[in-house]
Amino acid sequence: MGGATFIGAAENEQDAKVVLYGAPYDSTTSFRPGTRFGPAAIRSESFGIETYSPLQDRDLEDFPFFDSGDLELPFGAPDRALEMIEARAEEILFQGKIPFLLGGEHLVTLGAVRAVAKKHPDLRIIHFDAHADLREDYLGVRLSHACVMRRCHDLLGDGRIFQFGIRSGTREEFEFMRAGHVVTEPFSDATLVEVLDSIPPDAPVYLTVDMDVLDPSVFPGTGTPEAGGFNYRQLVGDVVRICGQLNVVGLDNVELAPSLDPTGRSTALACTFLRECLLALT
Amino acid sequence: MGGATFIGAAENEQDAKVVLYGAPYDSTTSFRPGTRFGPAAIRSESFGIETYSPLQDRDLEDFPFFDSGDLELPFGAPDRALEMIEARAEEILFQGKIPFLLGGEHLVTLGAVRAVAKKHPDLRIIHFDAHADLREDYLGVRLSHACVMRRCHDLLGDGRIFQFGIRSGTREEFEFMRAGHVVTEPFSDATLVEVLDSIPPDAPVYLTVDMDVLDPSVFPGTGTPEAGGFNYRQLVGDVVRICGQLNVVGLDNVELAPSLDPTGRSTALACTFLRECLLALT
Amino acid sequence: MGGATFIGAAENEQDAKVVLYGAPYDSTTSFRPGTRFGPAAIRSESFGIETYSPLQDRDLEDFPFFDSGDLELPFGAPDRALEMIEARAEEILFQGKIPFLLGGEHLVTLGAVRAVAKKHPDLRIIHFDAHADLREDYLGVRLSHACVMRRCHDLLGDGRIFQFGIRSGTREEFEFMRAGHVVTEPFSDATLVEVLDSIPPDAPVYLTVDMDVLDPSVFPGTGTPEAGGFNYRQLVGDVVRICGQLNVVGLDNVELAPSLDPTGRSTALACTFLRECLLALT
Amino acid sequence: MGGATFIGAAENEQDAKVVLYGAPYDSTTSFRPGTRFGPAAIRSESFGIETYSPLQDRDLEDFPFFDSGDLELPFGAPDRALEMIEARAEEILFQGKIPFLLGGEHLVTLGAVRAVAKKHPDLRIIHFDAHADLREDYLGVRLSHACVMRRCHDLLGDGRIFQFGIRSGTREEFEFMRAGHVVTEPFSDATLVEVLDSIPPDAPVYLTVDMDVLDPSVFPGTGTPEAGGFNYRQLVGDVVRICGQLNVVGLDNVELAPSLDPTGRSTALACTFLRECLLALT
Amino acid sequence: MGGATFIGAAENEQDAKVVLYGAPYDSTTSFRPGTRFGPAAIRSESFGIETYSPLQDRDLEDFPFFDSGDLELPFGAPDRALEMIEARAEEILFQGKIPFLLGGEHLVTLGAVRAVAKKHPDLRIIHFDAHADLREDYLGVRLSHACVMRRCHDLLGDGRIFQFGIRSGTREEFEFMRAGHVVTEPFSDATLVEVLDSIPPDAPVYLTVDMDVLDPSVFPGTGTPEAGGFNYRQLVGDVVRICGQLNVVGLDNVELAPSLDPTGRSTALACTFLRECLLALT
Amino acid sequence: MGGATFIGAAENEQDAKVVLYGAPYDSTTSFRPGTRFGPAAIRSESFGIETYSPLQDRDLEDFPFFDSGDLELPFGAPDRALEMIEARAEEILFQGKIPFLLGGEHLVTLGAVRAVAKKHPDLRIIHFDAHADLREDYLGVRLSHACVMRRCHDLLGDGRIFQFGIRSGTREEFEFMRAGHVVTEPFSDATLVEVLDSIPPDAPVYLTVDMDVLDPSVFPGTGTPEAGGFNYRQLVGDVVRICGQLNVVGLDNVELAPSLDPTGRSTALACTFLRECLLALT
Repeated sequence: MGGATFIGAAENEQDAKVVLYGAPYDSTTSFRPGTRFGPAAIRSESFGIETYSPLQDRDLEDFPFFDSGDLELPFGAPDRALEMIEARAEEILFQGKIPFLLGGEHLVTLGAVRAVAKKHPDLRIIHFDAHADLREDYLGVRLSHACVMRRCHDLLGDGRIFQFGIRSGTREEFEFMRAGHVVTEPFSDATLVEVLDSIPPDAPVYLTVDMDVLDPSVFPGTGTPEAGGFNYRQLVGDVVRICGQLNVVGLDNVELAPSLDPTGRSTALACTFLRECLLALT
Repeated sequence: MGGATFIGAAENEQDAKVVLYGAPYDSTTSFRPGTRFGPAAIRSESFGIETYSPLQDRDLEDFPFFDSGDLELPFGAPDRALEMIEARAEEILFQGKIPFLLGGEHLVTLGAVRAVAKKHPDLRIIHFDAHADLREDYLGVRLSHACVMRRCHDLLGDGRIFQFGIRSGTREEFEFMRAGHVVTEPFSDATLVEVLDSIPPDAPVYLTVDMDVLDPSVFPGTGTPEAGGFNYRQLVGDVVRICGQLNVVGLDNVELAPSLDPTGRSTALACTFLRECLLALT
Repeated sequence: MGGATFIGAAENEQDAKVVLYGAPYDSTTSFRPGTRFGPAAIRSESFGIETYSPLQDRDLEDFPFFDSGDLELPFGAPDRALEMIEARAEEILFQGKIPFLLGGEHLVTLGAVRAVAKKHPDLRIIHFDAHADLREDYLGVRLSHACVMRRCHDLLGDGRIFQFGIRSGTREEFEFMRAGHVVTEPFSDATLVEVLDSIPPDAPVYLTVDMDVLDPSVFPGTGTPEAGGFNYRQLVGDVVRICGQLNVVGLDNVELAPSLDPTGRSTALACTFLRECLLALT
Repeated sequence: MGGATFIGAAENEQDAKVVLYGAPYDSTTSFRPGTRFGPAAIRSESFGIETYSPLQDRDLEDFPFFDSGDLELPFGAPDRALEMIEARAEEILFQGKIPFLLGGEHLVTLGAVRAVAKKHPDLRIIHFDAHADLREDYLGVRLSHACVMRRCHDLLGDGRIFQFGIRSGTREEFEFMRAGHVVTEPFSDATLVEVLDSIPPDAPVYLTVDMDVLDPSVFPGTGTPEAGGFNYRQLVGDVVRICGQLNVVGLDNVELAPSLDPTGRSTALACTFLRECLLALT
Repeated sequence: MGGATFIGAAENEQDAKVVLYGAPYDSTTSFRPGTRFGPAAIRSESFGIETYSPLQDRDLEDFPFFDSGDLELPFGAPDRALEMIEARAEEILFQGKIPFLLGGEHLVTLGAVRAVAKKHPDLRIIHFDAHADLREDYLGVRLSHACVMRRCHDLLGDGRIFQFGIRSGTREEFEFMRAGHVVTEPFSDATLVEVLDSIPPDAPVYLTVDMDVLDPSVFPGTGTPEAGGFNYRQLVGDVVRICGQLNVVGLDNVELAPSLDPTGRSTALACTFLRECLLALT
Repeated sequence: MGGATFIGAAENEQDAKVVLYGAPYDSTTSFRPGTRFGPAAIRSESFGIETYSPLQDRDLEDFPFFDSGDLELPFGAPDRALEMIEARAEEILFQGKIPFLLGGEHLVTLGAVRAVAKKHPDLRIIHFDAHADLREDYLGVRLSHACVMRRCHDLLGDGRIFQFGIRSGTREEFEFMRAGHVVTEPFSDATLVEVLDSIPPDAPVYLTVDMDVLDPSVFPGTGTPEAGGFNYRQLVGDVVRICGQLNVVGLDNVELAPSLDPTGRSTALACTFLRECLLALT
C-alpha cells in the first residue's frame, strides 16, 4: 500500500511538464519539528485518493508529471541544504520544466527561489501563509524558517512579494509590510483578484504555499497552528485561479508535519491539494 | 459509565416506532479500518449527551425507540454478513417498525436496502457521502464499500438514487452520474429542496448517511477523510427536512471509526446526530 | 522553552491593570477530566505565539499585566477550593486590579463571581458556553460544573445572566431560560449587539468564557465537545466588542483540557485568545 | 462488540460466589486523572480475551461470579462516594459473597475496607502498590488516594497491613513503615512466602492491588507510573498463591486509567489479570 | 526518507537467496485491525536502522536478498487472497529461493504454507505465537486468523507443528494440544533445544513468527496483546538457532499493526528482527 | 502544577554542589526529532515524583543543587550552539561546581566535554548508549549526534572512552571499537566493575547517559528506539556505583523526546532517574 512516488506520476521524466522534488528538512524549526516526514507521507498516503478531480474535471493520468523523490539533505547544516535544493531546482529548470518542491520547513523555499530568480530576475512571489516570515533574523540566525520571506525580499527587492492570509508576526514585521516592502493582505485573500490583475500575465511567478495558511481545524498537522485561517475550497480556488491566469514557473507546498495530526486528515488533504495544484498547472 | 444501549432507549421493543441495530463490520474497507467499533462507541459515549434537543425542542424520553444491539457478524465473509443484516432488517420491517442501522463500513447498507426494497419495490435512496461509491468493482470484488451504491443501483435502476456532497470518485463514476443513472449534487446540498419536492410525499425513502459527508474538520473519525465537506448544522437541517417531508422507511448512519479520532469529538457528534435523526422521525 | 508565566507578563504586580491567576481544578468534571492541566499548558505553550496582535494592532509589551501563577487547590474538596479562589480574587480586587481566572473546570467561576459580586452587587454576567450549566444539582451535588450558572443565578437573581452559544442542556434548563430567569441566545451570538446596548456602559460585568462555546473543529481540547459552535474570529470579535463597550471588572477562560487534543492546536488557540482578551481590556 | 458485563459473568447473582462492582471515581487524583473509565473499559474489552486460563487450567464458564455493574458516584464529594461504596460492599457481604471492587482511584478501597472490617474486625490487608499511600493528609485533605492506606491503618491498627512493591513515598511515609506500623517489602515481593506463612489460614484477608505495582513497561495505563516494578507473571503468581493459601474475604483491582495507554494493552492485561483473580478464588 | 524496499535489499532478484513479499491483509481480524499497514511500515522505517548486526557480526550488504514488494490483495475475499499468496510463494520456490512473507494478519501464513507443503510434503512448522490459532472455526468462518494453525494441521497432520510461547486459547484448543495433535510448549521456549534436536537437520521447516509472541511491553503494536511473553533477545536467539541448525525453506513475520503503537518502537523492532532473520538464513 | 525548576532545587546557586543546565537542541537529529522538549518536560513533570529516594534513603531537600534553566540555543547552527553550551559549562566549572547537562540530542554532550576536558585534560568518559555514535561523519556533517563520541575521541585520544550497552552501529564503528580506540561492552554492562576498578578513584570522569540505553519497553520516548536494552534498576545501580567510586566532574542525561511517548512514563522515569543521579553525587 502506498508507493515510492505520488499517485499518477509518470514512469519517466522526459515528457513531464512538472517535476516534484522533496526537501525533507526541518533543522531550523523553532517550535515543534516534524515537517521532514512531509514528502514521504504525501507519497505514501496518496494511494488513498483518486487521480481524478471532480472540481477541475481533469485526471492526473492525462497529465504528465514526474516525481523525482527526495533530496538527501544533511541535518544541522542549512547552508549546504539550501545549495542542494537550489542545484536540484536549476537542473529541473534547465530541462524546461516546472520545479515543484515539497517541504519540509519553509526555509527550503529559499533554495528554490534562488534558482528560479537566477533564471527569471523579474520574478514575483505569491505567498500563502499564517506567518509573515519577514524577520531579519531569529535568535541571531538569518537562515531560519521565520526569515525566509525576508531573505527572498533581499533577493528580489520591494513590491515583488504578495502575501495572503498572514495573521501572526512581530510588530516589526507588520511595520515592514506597512512600509510597502511587501504587499500583504492580512487574514484573508480579499484582494487576490486585484493583485492578480496587477501582474502581467506573462511575468514569471513563484507560488509558495505554507499549508498553515489553512485554518488549524482543517489542517492541524503543522508545527505552529494559528487560528482563523482559510478553508480548503478557498485555497484550492485561489490556486486554480493563479495557475490559470499567471505564468507560474516554480512552486512549493511546505510545512506539513504528519505526525502532529494523528487523525491523518492533514496528510490526506495535502494529497488532494497537491493533485489540484498539479492539475491547475496544465 | 456508558451502557449497553443508546441513551433514552425504551426498555422493550413493543411500543417502539424505530429500532436501532448495529453492524460492526469493516472487512472490505480498503484504506484505514476501524468502523467495526462505531456502534459500541456510540452507545457507550451517549451517556455524555442529553436526551433533549434544543434544536427540535423534543426529548428522546417522549419518543419510544428500541436499541436491539449489535449483530455478531463473521469477519472476512461479506456475503454471509449481508444476509444476516438483511434478515434482521426484515424482522424489524415485519413488525411495522423503521429499521435504523448503525455501521460499520458503508457496505452494510446493502443488506438493509435489500430488505427494504423487497417490501417497497418503488424505493428511493437519499445518499449523503463524500465518495460516489459507484464502482462496478474494486480490485475485482463487487461486494465492497466502494461499490455499495452501484449495487443499490443494480437493485433499483435509474433515477432512484439521489446523492449529495459527493466530492471524490473515479472519472468513470462521475461519467456514470452524468449519464443520468443516479441524480448527484456534487460537493453540496444546493438542490436538496428541489429534489425533495420531486419525490411524492408518500413514496418510500431509504436515507443513508455516510458520516464522511461532513468536513473532516468536524468529523475526523473516519477512514477516508475528504476535505471540503458539510458542517454539522447543515447536515442536521437536511435530515430534519427529509424526515419531515418524506416517508422514510429505513435509514442508517455509517463509517464512524472512533479510534481514528483521539479527541473523541467524532463519536460525540455521531451521538447527537443520532439523537436528532431519531427525534426527526417522530 | 516555555516559562513560568504567560508571554509578555510584567516582572512585578504593581503597575499591572489585570492579574492572571490559575485554578487547576477539575474534581467535579462528570465526563472526561483534564482541565487541571489547562493553565500550565497555556503558560508553557505561550512562547510559541507573538506578543503582537495584528487584529488589534496592540502588543502585550505595552500593556502591563501580571501572572500570579496557580493556586494550589485540594482535589476532591470543592467547598475549600472555591473559598481559595474567592479569597484570591478578593485580594486582586482589593488592589484595584481586574482578576482574570484561568480554569480548570467551569465550577471555578463561582469562586471568582462570589468575590466580584461582593464588591459589585449589581453585577451582570456575560456567559459564552455550549452548555447551559443551569442544573439545580447533578447527581445530588450542587457544587458541580453543570450547575455553576444556576449557583450564580442564586447569587444575582433574574435578568442578570446573558448567555450565548448554548446548544446543550436538559429540558428543565431550557424551560428555566424560557421562564426568563436568564437571557439566553441559544446556538449563536445573533443578539449580542442588542444585549450589550441594553447594559449601562458603567455597569460592572463579569465575562466568563467556557472555551467549548467554540466549535469542536476549532477547539477539540475540551471534555464535552458539542458540535455546531462558534468559530475563532467570531468569539474574538465578540470579546473585543464587550471589553470595548462595557465595564468588565472580572473575567475568566475555562475548560481547556490540553491532553484531549494531541494536535496541540487547542492550547495554541487558547494562548492567542488570552492575548486578545488581555489586549481588549486596555 | 463488548458488552455490559465482564466476559463469562453469570446471568444472575444467586449462585455467584464473587460479585464484581465498579467504582468509576477519580476526584482526588492529584496527577493525571482517568481511572473513572477503568471499569467500563475492562468490561468492554473483556470480549477480546478467552474465558479459559491455561495457567490455572480453569474456565470462567465453570465458575459462577456476578457482575453487578458500576455505582453512580457523585464527582467531587468523596465522603458520599465512600459511603455508597461501603453500602454496596455490605450488601454483597450480607449475601455471603465476596465483594470484588473495580476502581477507580485507590481511595475507593477505603469504602470496601470499612464494610469488610465491620464484619471482620480482625481483618488483614495485603497491599500491592508502587506508592506507600500512607500520608496523613495531602494538601490538607485526608480522604485522598495518597492517604488511603493510612486511613486503613487508622481503622485496623499496627501490624495488619502488608505491603509489597512500594518504591515511592515521602521520607515520612518510609519512617512510618520503619516504625513498624505497617509491614512493608519495598521494591519487591521477596518476603511474600514468609508473610503468608505468618498469617493464620482462616484469618480474614482483604487483597488490594493497585495495578501500578506492575512495571510501567507492562502497565503504562495509570496516572503515576513508577519505574522498577513487577512483571505480569510475578503478580499473577503472587495472587494465585494468596488466594490458594489464605481466606480472602474481599478484594479490589484499582488505578487502571485506560486512555493514558493508547496501545490498549494495559486494559487487555487488566482483563486477563481479573480473570486470573476470579479463577484463583475458586 | 524511507524507500520502496527494505534497507540493504539487492537491486535485482537474480542472485538473491531469499525473497521478501508482503501480504497487507487483515480482513478476518476479529479484534483491532491494522496489520495491513505492517509491510509498508517495515520498509519505510527500515532506513532508521543499520544494515550491520553486531549480534551476528554480519551485514545485509554482504547478503543478497530481494524485496519484491506487496501483493495487491482484495479485501473481504480471503479465498482469493490466499490463492494469490500461494501463487507468489510458488513462483519464488520455483526459482529455488526462500519465500519470506511479511504480514498482514496470521491467516496469510496459510497461503505460503500451502505452496511450501506442495513442494515439501514432509514439512514441519515451527510456530511462535501468544495464541494457539487452533480453532476449528471462528463464528462459523474457517479461513480466519484464529484457525490458521488448525488449517495447517489439516494439511500436514499430527506431530508436524511445534508451538512456542502460546498463552491464550480456548479450553478446546488446549485439549487439542494435549491430545498430541500438535507439540506445544505453552508460555515459554523451554523445550526449544530438545524440539530442534528431534527434527532431522535436512527436513524442510517452515518458520512462522506471530510477533505477538513477544511481551506487549516490547511489542505493543499488535491487535491482541497478551501479557507474559518473550523478550527480544530471547526471540532473536531462538530464530538464529533454528536457522543455523535446521533447513528453513520458507518463513514469515506477521501481525505487526504499526498504528496501534504510537511510539513507533514496534515497527523499529520489527525492522531489526527482520534484519536478524535475514542474516540468520545465510 | 509543575514549575520552572526541577523539584527540590535550591533557591540560589551559591551553596549548590551541582548545577543543572538545559540544552533544548535537536537540529542534527537524523530520524525523529523532539528531544528539544526534554528539559522542559522533566522540570514540569518533576512535581509528580517525590524528593525522597527509598533506594538511596536520601532526600533532595538535604542536597543543595541548583537548576539554572535552559540555554536559548539557535536552531540550525550547531557550531554556535556548542559554543554556548561550552561557555555555560565553563562558568559552572569555574565556580567549582559540577555541571549537569540535560539534553537535547546527544551532540550537546560535545559542548560540555570540551569545557570539562579543557579543565581536566586527563578526562575519561563513561558512556551509556544503544548507539555507538562513533561515525567519522554523517551525510558529510561532522557535528552530528551520530558522531559525538568520535568527536570526543578526537579530543581525548585512545583508551579514554568506556562504552556500555551499545547494540547498534555500522560495521566501521564496530571495527573502530575492536581496534581498541574505545573500550566497549556491547549489549550489556557485564564488565562495569572491572572497568571502574581500572580507573584511578581520583581521575576525572565525565558520565554521559543517552537514555536510549534503556530498553524501549521501559523508555519509549526517544527518537531511535533499539530493542534489547537495560532495565531501569540496572542503570540506576550502575550510576550509583560510578558516582560512589569515581570522581565525576561533569555529567549529562540526553535524548528524552517526551512527545514520542504519549503515556508519559518516559518523562516520569527521566525525572526519577535524574533524582537518583543527583543523590548519588553527594
